[in-house]
Amino acid sequence: MNKSGSLIVISGPSGVGKGTIIPYVLKKVKRLKVSISATTRKPRNTEVDGVNYYFISKEKFNSMIENDEFYEYVNVLDNSYGTPKKQVDDLLAKGYDVILEIETIGAEKIMNEYKCVSIFISPPSFSELKNRLINRGTETQEQIELRMKKSEKEMNSVYSYDYVVINDDIEDCAEKIACIIRAERLKVKSSKAFINKIINS
Amino acid sequence: MNKSGSLIVISGPSGVGKGTIIPYVLKKVKRLKVSISATTRKPRNTEVDGVNYYFISKEKFNSMIENDEFYEYVNVLDNSYGTPKKQVDDLLAKGYDVILEIETIGAEKIMNEYKCVSIFISPPSFSELKNRLINRGTETQEQIELRMKKSEKEMNSVYSYDYVVINDDIEDCAEKIACIIRAERLKVKSSKAFINKIINS
Repeated sequence: MNKSGSLIVISGPSGVGKGTIIPYVLKKVKRLKVSISATTRKPRNTEVDGVNYYFISKEKFNSMIENDEFYEYVNVLDNSYGTPKKQVDDLLAKGYDVILEIETIGAEKIMNEYKCVSIFISPPSFSELKNRLINRGTETQEQIELRMKKSEKEMNSVYSYDYVVINDDIEDCAEKIACIIRAERLKVKSSKAFINKIINS
Repeated sequence: MNKSGSLIVISGPSGVGKGTIIPYVLKKVKRLKVSISATTRKPRNTEVDGVNYYFISKEKFNSMIENDEFYEYVNVLDNSYGTPKKQVDDLLAKGYDVILEIETIGAEKIMNEYKCVSIFISPPSFSELKNRLINRGTETQEQIELRMKKSEKEMNSVYSYDYVVINDDIEDCAEKIACIIRAERLKVKSSKAFINKIINS
């Protein structure tokens, strides 16, 4: 069986809305799943273990690093985030495309090491990004200033990606990402089994 | 001004339905035009000069070849077809994406010589393609057999293209092509001016 989906890396500056958009994309596209990251940070209000993240201890995280069980892992503001390999590989083998929603540093690692489709979500402007972080209300003023400096760096990594989508309107942004995923499935290199069937018909 | 659209090559075996699908695509996507080819063949029933083709004499066609006025030209079953450069270049300069609907031999020339997005339209099977040629009723039995042999050759060129779309249902096929064109516009390499604006915001 040579049934295998594509890795789809979705990244962008902190606060751009990656986590909000992806459920909309999942509703629009069949045969698509999102990878659940492991993190050592505390859950935010509405977050559920095993749904939003696997919330694990620093000890468990370190043992997974030692056992090479992550596609990538990264430390962001005192917390660690990682993409567990097994869960993603199982889905790819079943023919699902799998979205990895990751910070830009982790995304760079994946893009350098694995075949993937990469999508950068951009804010319409930096002032809009700052407003969103303030409205989220989960960070202090100092943390927001720190994040904004980081966001400017993160924005510069956009040139490493295949696609860039502006998050101006959630529904529109999700439709554009869905369109990218559908178009990628129509690439000749993704359709070889099907083409051979027609040629031999 | 650095405003420039993309060349979009749409090809596939004779009779696959390229000419039928493209008007549907044009309705779905803004800022998109189709190039009008010049040909020496006689108009079919409903075809209009300057809309479906520029119907020109063999003498005129040859003088355009001599003056290097074609992107590509090709002879198909005693007739000549060519893509006039000027009309396409004017539209690209205005920021339109321009579809070139061309036979596979002309498409290969364009793909080798110019930066373009290439889409191959495939029949669901060869038997379906034969049925369509019979139903079109414009060719003799002998011409159909000749076309089918050519179609098998044409089908093998699919691997030179970026994308392949099966024409099983016109509306579905047109939507897929529209999706490819929208996704191509979201590529980072197509969005540099916009990205710079955000980074400098």
